Amino acid sequence: MTGKRILIVGGVAGGASCAARLRRLDEQAAITIFERGPYVSFANCGLPYHVGGVIADESKLLVATPELFRDRFSITIRTGHEVIAIDKTAKTIQVREVATGSLATHAYDALVLAPGAAAIKPPIPGIDLPGIFPVRTIPDARHVRAWITDRQATSALVIGGGFIGLEMVENLAHRGLAVTVIEKADQVLPPLDREMATLVQERLASARVSVHLGDGIAAFALDAAGRLEATTGRGQRIIADLVILAVGVRPETALAQAANLTLGSSGGIAVDETMRTSDPAIWAVGDAVETVDVVTGARQIIPLAGPANRQGRIAAESICGRNARFRGVQATAVCGVFGLTVAMTGASEKALTRAGITGWDAVRLHPAHHVGYYPGAKAIHLKLIYRRADGRVLGAQAVGEEGVDKRIDVLAMAIQLGATVQDLAEAELCYAPQYGAAKDPVNLAGFIADNALSGDMPLSEWDVLGNGSSFVLDVREPAECARGMIPGSLNIPLHQLRDRLSEVPTDKPVAVLCAAGQRAYYAVRILRQQGVDARNLSGGWQTYSALVAGR
Amino acid sequence: MTGKRILIVGGVAGGASCAARLRRLDEQAAITIFERGPYVSFANCGLPYHVGGVIADESKLLVATPELFRDRFSITIRTGHEVIAIDKTAKTIQVREVATGSLATHAYDALVLAPGAAAIKPPIPGIDLPGIFPVRTIPDARHVRAWITDRQATSALVIGGGFIGLEMVENLAHRGLAVTVIEKADQVLPPLDREMATLVQERLASARVSVHLGDGIAAFALDAAGRLEATTGRGQRIIADLVILAVGVRPETALAQAANLTLGSSGGIAVDETMRTSDPAIWAVGDAVETVDVVTGARQIIPLAGPANRQGRIAAESICGRNARFRGVQATAVCGVFGLTVAMTGASEKALTRAGITGWDAVRLHPAHHVGYYPGAKAIHLKLIYRRADGRVLGAQAVGEEGVDKRIDVLAMAIQLGATVQDLAEAELCYAPQYGAAKDPVNLAGFIADNALSGDMPLSEWDVLGNGSSFVLDVREPAECARGMIPGSLNIPLHQLRDRLSEVPTDKPVAVLCAAGQRAYYAVRILRQQGVDARNLSGGWQTYSALVAGR
Repeated sequence: MTGKRILIVGGVAGGASCAARLRRLDEQAAITIFERGPYVSFANCGLPYHVGGVIADESKLLVATPELFRDRFSITIRTGHEVIAIDKTAKTIQVREVATGSLATHAYDALVLAPGAAAIKPPIPGIDLPGIFPVRTIPDARHVRAWITDRQATSALVIGGGFIGLEMVENLAHRGLAVTVIEKADQVLPPLDREMATLVQERLASARVSVHLGDGIAAFALDAAGRLEATTGRGQRIIADLVILAVGVRPETALAQAANLTLGSSGGIAVDETMRTSDPAIWAVGDAVETVDVVTGARQIIPLAGPANRQGRIAAESICGRNARFRGVQATAVCGVFGLTVAMTGASEKALTRAGITGWDAVRLHPAHHVGYYPGAKAIHLKLIYRRADGRVLGAQAVGEEGVDKRIDVLAMAIQLGATVQDLAEAELCYAPQYGAAKDPVNLAGFIADNALSGDMPLSEWDVLGNGSSFVLDVREPAECARGMIPGSLNIPLHQLRDRLSEVPTDKPVAVLCAAGQRAYYAVRILRQQGVDARNLSGGWQTYSALVAGR
Repeated sequence: MTGKRILIVGGVAGGASCAARLRRLDEQAAITIFERGPYVSFANCGLPYHVGGVIADESKLLVATPELFRDRFSITIRTGHEVIAIDKTAKTIQVREVATGSLATHAYDALVLAPGAAAIKPPIPGIDLPGIFPVRTIPDARHVRAWITDRQATSALVIGGGFIGLEMVENLAHRGLAVTVIEKADQVLPPLDREMATLVQERLASARVSVHLGDGIAAFALDAAGRLEATTGRGQRIIADLVILAVGVRPETALAQAANLTLGSSGGIAVDETMRTSDPAIWAVGDAVETVDVVTGARQIIPLAGPANRQGRIAAESICGRNARFRGVQATAVCGVFGLTVAMTGASEKALTRAGITGWDAVRLHPAHHVGYYPGAKAIHLKLIYRRADGRVLGAQAVGEEGVDKRIDVLAMAIQLGATVQDLAEAELCYAPQYGAAKDPVNLAGFIADNALSGDMPLSEWDVLGNGSSFVLDVREPAECARGMIPGSLNIPLHQLRDRLSEVPTDKPVAVLCAAGQRAYYAVRILRQQGVDARNLSGGWQTYSALVAGR
């Protein structure tokens, strides 16, 4: 080989993608991947499902073997080799073979850091007791599986109710274990807005998962029977045969820091749009890197496989002198929870508030995933966030049993391309009875937001309830109201509204609701044309229930 | 009522949408819908599934009743009333009550024509024999169901292999009938490109549907047993207990023509972007209207429910003096066929060729709908068409068992917003193992097209095969090649290619294939860096098989 010497630290998503792309661009380069662990290019997103037995065969998780890298790409893989130092001036790295401790020095023309992120292990008394596991690597999963089998485990405690935590909850329950999950935030899936997370909590409850919110673990110990005993911050005791740590990850930045590469304010390795670090011969990609959120502009570390792969590709292009730029992360994520799909893309209300961004609104709707007249229609609980000034779509979240990832993917593409809510209204999506509706949930979200923006149907804030600033009008049928009403609200069924206008006050805003929002919209239109300042409580009774349950 | 008098002719998708939107915009308007048939706002897209018994209850197909229109929207519905003439000068219409024949005249300030389209009834001898049915209305479906039951039908012939025809085929088979389908074109689903339709034909064959292509019916008669006997143009005889006519629809333009409203070159009612006809007080929407294809610019009649609904909404806005414009149709369509989903959006190769548009390319790929390591991955056969000059996405087609409509919906949004193939490469879509992949099929399509555009991986035309202009290199493993190879091709497995470069000619283009295209891509990169003019036979052996089968 007479070509460029390219060394890559870490061989999972970003590192492996980068290596393969490099070879396609440069047949002459000498490409070597150093990986501390025993495997490269393994499917860490599949680990929970391997623990759960859904993916029965461990070898399925090995997406590409060192032999494949060698035979197909002429790439050298050194597993069990940890890179322990970078000499930027000499352009060398020092590598330690994990098994023997022997050291070696390798020279590079270009260095790519793809070290990933490690599971956070909180400094809690007892954290090192046997039976407490992270699930980040194939050996981790192997240990959990062996522990469950060997101990005939019947109960598990999952620390952390984020995406990975809930995937572990589901998979452990799938194996028949009684599962408890504890989450420091006051909701599961903290990236989601509260009323969306409430729907997931209800599903967890109906799957008999014990959910502890707003609480954490203070200490672990062993009980008399040798089982793990966790004491929560609030003083509760939880007994379990095993504990899964899923409280998040921290970027593996020690090597970069030791080499004086610049870190970002988020703690991740700082890179430019070409994934180049502060050193011109060093690139970095994946979970250890700081990225920019395309919607909020926030600098952050978002450990997601899709962006890691894209970054690896872009670093390769940059190393080969091509012009490619990483456009940032929009934080599209999805998770299956006991038959529910939870998905989001772009900014949540929380993320916007955290970034100090104002001037947006949210609409909520609960359409069926396909037409109601075809059997099996399931509700999608959808929230769309958009900018008031120009209707630009900023984010979306959805929860439901069917068709959820489809709508979020469509909205992810819409956000990427700068769509407005009017564009959503005009979208022309697949429609046959078993697939959608002539007015797809994406269209409906666009209609509702457009109606709000145009002033046809102003939105009422949900927090007006109870403060007396608005009169609350419920236009559902009496039979629906019998199952529950907002305290202090008046019921006039929609079809009676034209005849009972005199009962509606004209001296204060009237917040109108129905079951999901459609009849309230019709009512708002009737009332506004009569001079009433009517506004829609977006999402109706369904959203109200989720908001109340989330308190 | 002191408001504007608005009359609407036709109360299904476009007419009903228009009426409801009108009421929301104008509480004072007097709105009346005249519908010749017995029902308004019924789900004609559900009719095949009602015939098939999937939607068991006929009343489910009634999306909104006249009572709902009256109570909720204060809209008057006159079913069983046919509008027989328009007096543009007097601004009146003449209406005939179907049951009694009595005539009445109604004045309008605004008139909306939403007459829809009628099933084409070809002028074939015997076409009026009992047992030959269109399926456009609820009574049509009722007649078919009754016929099947009363006659204890065991066989059916469906004339027309388009979307509706194949839905009828599936539903009749679902009821246990032996089904034959005959289609004049040399493929089913004529809007699709041939190699995509081939996949559907294979599925029909495995479902034991008898498929006759490139043939039509010359005559119907009754056989000795009183069953329908169809004679095809090629002289074949097909016996069936019933016949379904699904050879397309023709726009109901007689009323518009009689009123001297301008028709377009396609034969549909000509309208401007606000859905206004050549008469300033008359609007038209739905299946009877000529629309513009957003990709090809072709003027056409596309009977689709989604656009009809959008048009109804826009006509209402226009009537109320608002500024809304119909952006045109991108012909997104989907169909379920015996467990396959077939979907498309934007232009096909055929549509581009028909419109005289050149300068585009197509890539084909066959990725799994979610990661292969999670159980149940199914192939999506995907074709992406894009403009060579700037990479703009022009169209997409997909066939597969899972995740097909999702990808086409994402691509529909991409086309609407003017995305390029680079945008597809950069899309950030939902990924968890059961939902997709870190490199989603949409990303992969973008990568492949981008590689072709950048010159990294030029595409070989498929029609080079056999004409001697290219050397054909197959980089699959010998075990794969044992099941079939392109005549005259050379097999060098990818992992041996670097050692066997001398076997590859450098004096002519080398067309490279593998099973689906990925290994061929790697091979193209190796060869091009050695100075070989290597090109990818996009879609590989899978596409080749479909192309050959389609001949």
